[in-house]
Amino acid sequence: MSEEQDRINLANEISKHENDMNDYFLLIMAWFVLLMQFGFAFLEAGSVRAMNTVNIIWKNILDFFIGALVFWAVGFAFAFGDLPEDHPHASSNRFIGLKFFFDMGNPYEPERSGFAFWIFMFSFAVNAATIVSGSVAERSQIGAYIIYTTFITGFIFPVVAHWSWTETGWLRNPKIENFYRHDYSSNGTFFYDQNQPVQFIDFAGSAVVHCTGGVAGLIGAWFMGPRGGRFGKENEGLFFGHSVPLINLGFLFLFIGFLCFNGGSELAIVGPGNHGTTVAKIFVNTILGGSAGGIVSLAYNYLTLRWKRGYADISLYYLMNGALAGWVAIAAGSNSLTQAYSLLVGSLGALFMIFSKNLLEKFEIDDPLTASPIHLGGGLVGIFLTPIFKHDGLIAFDICPVQELEYIRKYPNGTDFRCDFFEWKVLGWNIAGTLAILVWTIALSGAVFWSLKKLKLLRVPASIEKYGLDKLKHGEDAYPLDSYFG
Amino acid sequence: MSEEQDRINLANEISKHENDMNDYFLLIMAWFVLLMQFGFAFLEAGSVRAMNTVNIIWKNILDFFIGALVFWAVGFAFAFGDLPEDHPHASSNRFIGLKFFFDMGNPYEPERSGFAFWIFMFSFAVNAATIVSGSVAERSQIGAYIIYTTFITGFIFPVVAHWSWTETGWLRNPKIENFYRHDYSSNGTFFYDQNQPVQFIDFAGSAVVHCTGGVAGLIGAWFMGPRGGRFGKENEGLFFGHSVPLINLGFLFLFIGFLCFNGGSELAIVGPGNHGTTVAKIFVNTILGGSAGGIVSLAYNYLTLRWKRGYADISLYYLMNGALAGWVAIAAGSNSLTQAYSLLVGSLGALFMIFSKNLLEKFEIDDPLTASPIHLGGGLVGIFLTPIFKHDGLIAFDICPVQELEYIRKYPNGTDFRCDFFEWKVLGWNIAGTLAILVWTIALSGAVFWSLKKLKLLRVPASIEKYGLDKLKHGEDAYPLDSYFG
Amino acid sequence: MSEEQDRINLANEISKHENDMNDYFLLIMAWFVLLMQFGFAFLEAGSVRAMNTVNIIWKNILDFFIGALVFWAVGFAFAFGDLPEDHPHASSNRFIGLKFFFDMGNPYEPERSGFAFWIFMFSFAVNAATIVSGSVAERSQIGAYIIYTTFITGFIFPVVAHWSWTETGWLRNPKIENFYRHDYSSNGTFFYDQNQPVQFIDFAGSAVVHCTGGVAGLIGAWFMGPRGGRFGKENEGLFFGHSVPLINLGFLFLFIGFLCFNGGSELAIVGPGNHGTTVAKIFVNTILGGSAGGIVSLAYNYLTLRWKRGYADISLYYLMNGALAGWVAIAAGSNSLTQAYSLLVGSLGALFMIFSKNLLEKFEIDDPLTASPIHLGGGLVGIFLTPIFKHDGLIAFDICPVQELEYIRKYPNGTDFRCDFFEWKVLGWNIAGTLAILVWTIALSGAVFWSLKKLKLLRVPASIEKYGLDKLKHGEDAYPLDSYFG
Repeated sequence: MSEEQDRINLANEISKHENDMNDYFLLIMAWFVLLMQFGFAFLEAGSVRAMNTVNIIWKNILDFFIGALVFWAVGFAFAFGDLPEDHPHASSNRFIGLKFFFDMGNPYEPERSGFAFWIFMFSFAVNAATIVSGSVAERSQIGAYIIYTTFITGFIFPVVAHWSWTETGWLRNPKIENFYRHDYSSNGTFFYDQNQPVQFIDFAGSAVVHCTGGVAGLIGAWFMGPRGGRFGKENEGLFFGHSVPLINLGFLFLFIGFLCFNGGSELAIVGPGNHGTTVAKIFVNTILGGSAGGIVSLAYNYLTLRWKRGYADISLYYLMNGALAGWVAIAAGSNSLTQAYSLLVGSLGALFMIFSKNLLEKFEIDDPLTASPIHLGGGLVGIFLTPIFKHDGLIAFDICPVQELEYIRKYPNGTDFRCDFFEWKVLGWNIAGTLAILVWTIALSGAVFWSLKKLKLLRVPASIEKYGLDKLKHGEDAYPLDSYFG
Repeated sequence: MSEEQDRINLANEISKHENDMNDYFLLIMAWFVLLMQFGFAFLEAGSVRAMNTVNIIWKNILDFFIGALVFWAVGFAFAFGDLPEDHPHASSNRFIGLKFFFDMGNPYEPERSGFAFWIFMFSFAVNAATIVSGSVAERSQIGAYIIYTTFITGFIFPVVAHWSWTETGWLRNPKIENFYRHDYSSNGTFFYDQNQPVQFIDFAGSAVVHCTGGVAGLIGAWFMGPRGGRFGKENEGLFFGHSVPLINLGFLFLFIGFLCFNGGSELAIVGPGNHGTTVAKIFVNTILGGSAGGIVSLAYNYLTLRWKRGYADISLYYLMNGALAGWVAIAAGSNSLTQAYSLLVGSLGALFMIFSKNLLEKFEIDDPLTASPIHLGGGLVGIFLTPIFKHDGLIAFDICPVQELEYIRKYPNGTDFRCDFFEWKVLGWNIAGTLAILVWTIALSGAVFWSLKKLKLLRVPASIEKYGLDKLKHGEDAYPLDSYFG
Repeated sequence: MSEEQDRINLANEISKHENDMNDYFLLIMAWFVLLMQFGFAFLEAGSVRAMNTVNIIWKNILDFFIGALVFWAVGFAFAFGDLPEDHPHASSNRFIGLKFFFDMGNPYEPERSGFAFWIFMFSFAVNAATIVSGSVAERSQIGAYIIYTTFITGFIFPVVAHWSWTETGWLRNPKIENFYRHDYSSNGTFFYDQNQPVQFIDFAGSAVVHCTGGVAGLIGAWFMGPRGGRFGKENEGLFFGHSVPLINLGFLFLFIGFLCFNGGSELAIVGPGNHGTTVAKIFVNTILGGSAGGIVSLAYNYLTLRWKRGYADISLYYLMNGALAGWVAIAAGSNSLTQAYSLLVGSLGALFMIFSKNLLEKFEIDDPLTASPIHLGGGLVGIFLTPIFKHDGLIAFDICPVQELEYIRKYPNGTDFRCDFFEWKVLGWNIAGTLAILVWTIALSGAVFWSLKKLKLLRVPASIEKYGLDKLKHGEDAYPLDSYFG
């Protein structure tokens, strides 16, 4: 009896360790994703003109603080107010969560701390919101900024997260019978995992975070209009950022953040399954995807320039932005792609970023940080390609002749082979889900930006834009001349 | 027999894991608190004029290196030379520790590594010392700086830590019989934890670290006198820091550090109790407290300015310093406050920081980094409000009519209710302890600064102050013009 | 039966936890060592003239990306293609590994994830490669840089790592019978660990990483020749770095990195042995060694200058570089030195760095970052002194009269004492191994640099050097004037 009890005690102790260690893991990961906020701050600060440096840093710090209060008050509730289905408190709300406002009684994953999960998801929410600050830099009103950042962190992103990442969300759990793979085990279709449902596959937020933030930024930049004098031949080259080291510093924190953004999405490091190996694999894939993205973007820019005009610059800008797009693209499948396909997905993310950037410039939409090409462009590549290339994806399993061969090998006398288009359906569902996310975000952020524009609250007057927001709005200079040559 | 042995082996293995994991946890936390040293360096570098940049960075690096040697040689011994009372080596010295000089045989928490604990406490000690470097920036002699930083890290702070954070310390363990809550269990005072002693409550150093460092900085700034031309109408605006991005960079590392400063004070992540949950809760409280502090400080400054003169700046300075004060204030109760009270304590810390700053300026005490308003001001708010607002504090339990109602509910026939002023005593003891810490620090740091002033070692000559310490003391320019336009 | 099974399950679960936790530990450590890449980037950016800032940042980012692809494709295979001897797949190749190209099937440490180990070792490889970028800064061709960084990351470093850090490597496992300590247990030589072989002792890469990178940098700087106008009286002082805060920022990330570089080399945090304590001890030793190095370097420079010319600068440059050399020197013995000897080794590393730097300047070899004095100089001190000073090293055990006394104490009637020169042999083997590493690296990197020079690919034309690589090669200015005063 006592021996039995001893064993049970030991097992409980081990299980308690698991929870504590997973809290520890998630906290550290969350904590590095929070650094991305500062990564965006420095990247944006270096990429604007010196006279708007205080403004952009101020925005990035403030949206973190506001985000904390808003996500604590309502955002987390909208996103994760529903519990796993077998939980007694679970509701069946498939569109939005409605529990745990003000984090009250947040019991998410009851055996573990809801606090760590809250911080991790908060870090994702501010991430989505802050992407926008880059797209509308150097010209947006401060009041407008506060309003839409509140809206994105507190409502637009949380609802998308609810759809995609909770057990009751309609994207994650379609509950449509024939979406499930049927069991033809005795003499039918070849199958590999008979009960796996079709569901939206976005492991670390290529769509949920990056497309959401990126498309909101695009809408913002479009409503805002370009900075004065940005387009037109005579102004070319007038809009360089004021400090490459600051840009690189921001890039560093984003690199740190992306590894933990993707790795932390595993949510655990010990326990059933192979969390340790998976997290390590995600790190490797993220490193490879970003490296490929950076190199491909650099080379593409170099070669096309050289081909067009005979000589070419070796661009640091393209090297860094290519890597960023690669990291964004790899997020959705960082746990399920092989290393070779990680290289491919990262590279395609970078190329599509360049394509999107050129498109933006053609339409004279001014995104000072290239934020929407990176996050929306890279995100779309990731969310669409992951179902195709992942290790158990379309290419690996769902080519019908391959299935048929496998079927024949297994049932030499079988005659009723029917091709299973399971992974095609997964791809279709990923496309449908992404479209839903885009429509939702465009509609809501569009409404916000449109209202602000109508109320004349969206953009600063041209005079302020000309002399910079730092002096005229903040009364603080980033580099006061007196302090250098006083 | 062998089965019994197997179980014991497993239990030992689990317990060994606990120790290793807690070492791992404490190392990572310590290691991020060490980054605060660089946070201070960048915050201070950005906040001084360009001609003193090398000097302030040099100071912040050197006090780290000197601090390591001094805290290794004597500081740790003074602070933690005593062991838990039931330990055979424990002494009963209540004022100062006197073992483990040169870290020899440091067996703190015998089952765990004393090394990790040493690093964590070292990170606190240099923190206290480096706060002062901000208060006396741009004018202190280098020799003077070395002397007082040695003194703070090696003696002033360690003794305060001994009082407050060791089992034998007189603040932590008053050993005064009637300070204990008595047991009226049969028919008397309502009680909730009958054996809990009154003790000094400062979970993560609002008083021990921040008030100590802040008041030493205040004394230093007072003895040092203001920078030449700092006060007087004609100089207003002449003393801006030279780089807002550097300030923000410092702020980032302080943010990183504060989370781990508070979270790491739990000292463990696995084992009996709910360390994982507690650490995560501390992170949440710290984030909320700082966010509230920043927003309240920003809004207060904006509204008062607007009310006074009709228009107002939207200040990045107040946003960042409010958050810093909020983090300082939340330290003492970060493990014991609810989220709502964290918001309140952070906000009050920020407001009191502004009040202290205005007071300093009124008395023409020149603290270039606002270091003492943040650390002393914020620290006082935290240490005084925690006993009032914590989840088992004065408001929750010690309102006598509430106690009486509870008593009557529990003992319907009881007649001898006597109000228990336990939490009032805790509050009183926290106030008394803080006064003791302030008196100690003022006396000792005052003596050091006074002696240095008498010996003419405290302040650089006016000519050096005018042209900057970088060129004249270090022979190194932070931004040599030749390297830009060579 | 079921009880037995329960126990086995528990034991398995514990062992699985160990693997997951060690993965977690190694990932975090690796991840901070990767930050050193950015540390080098900022240190180098601040140390060059403003007109080469983009170039040096570009190089440091690109060699990270290229390094990831190359180390994934071939580097890891060359280094760790062999498995422990008792592993069925082990080969007996003592010079180079030849398995796991493209990371395929990488099963290193079969029970743990090979991914985490790959990232950790990748971080070491790029470290070795990037050291060179400092030595050849401000004048090397971009194409040349890509070629030799590929070569170092993909071949030169991996082979050295194979020799020194794998079970089959010839340095780690000499397989020369009489190198082993013999057993004179009954009445012979005093011994303390009879079966310990003589082997190359370089715990965290003083030789494997730092000497390899440092000597390659030296060769590069020598082939490259000094920057135009660097030597000669009239130019003194013309080559200051353009931003001390950037240098300090780089220093910070290198500090972060060094702690984890050394601590992570333990490779595990839980499991048999005392990993937690050891890692914490390594952190303490690293902090102490760097602190001593910084202070000694500062003091030496101050005192010699003062003695030579009557007044002296208080140099931030010497403070930081002394600490860096101290960290490099402490690497080899960070797990086996006492704290006092850590102080000594760090100090001697710093002094030898200064000596090497002066030597370089005498020979007019231009190393803009002092990279080879720090890494080669500091590394040599570490690799040579560790066998002497480590806690079971030459001084502790191998002084023959001491051995004899011990022998007589143990065998009062023994008459045939023969001194055991075991630790002398270890020292000799460390020297021999270091020479082998130097010869290998000099030969190969020399061949690469020589070929590039012959092909006129090594150095940019003087005109480009004069106006900076940023404008003329990258078309991107680090600080475009238009963005400040537009």
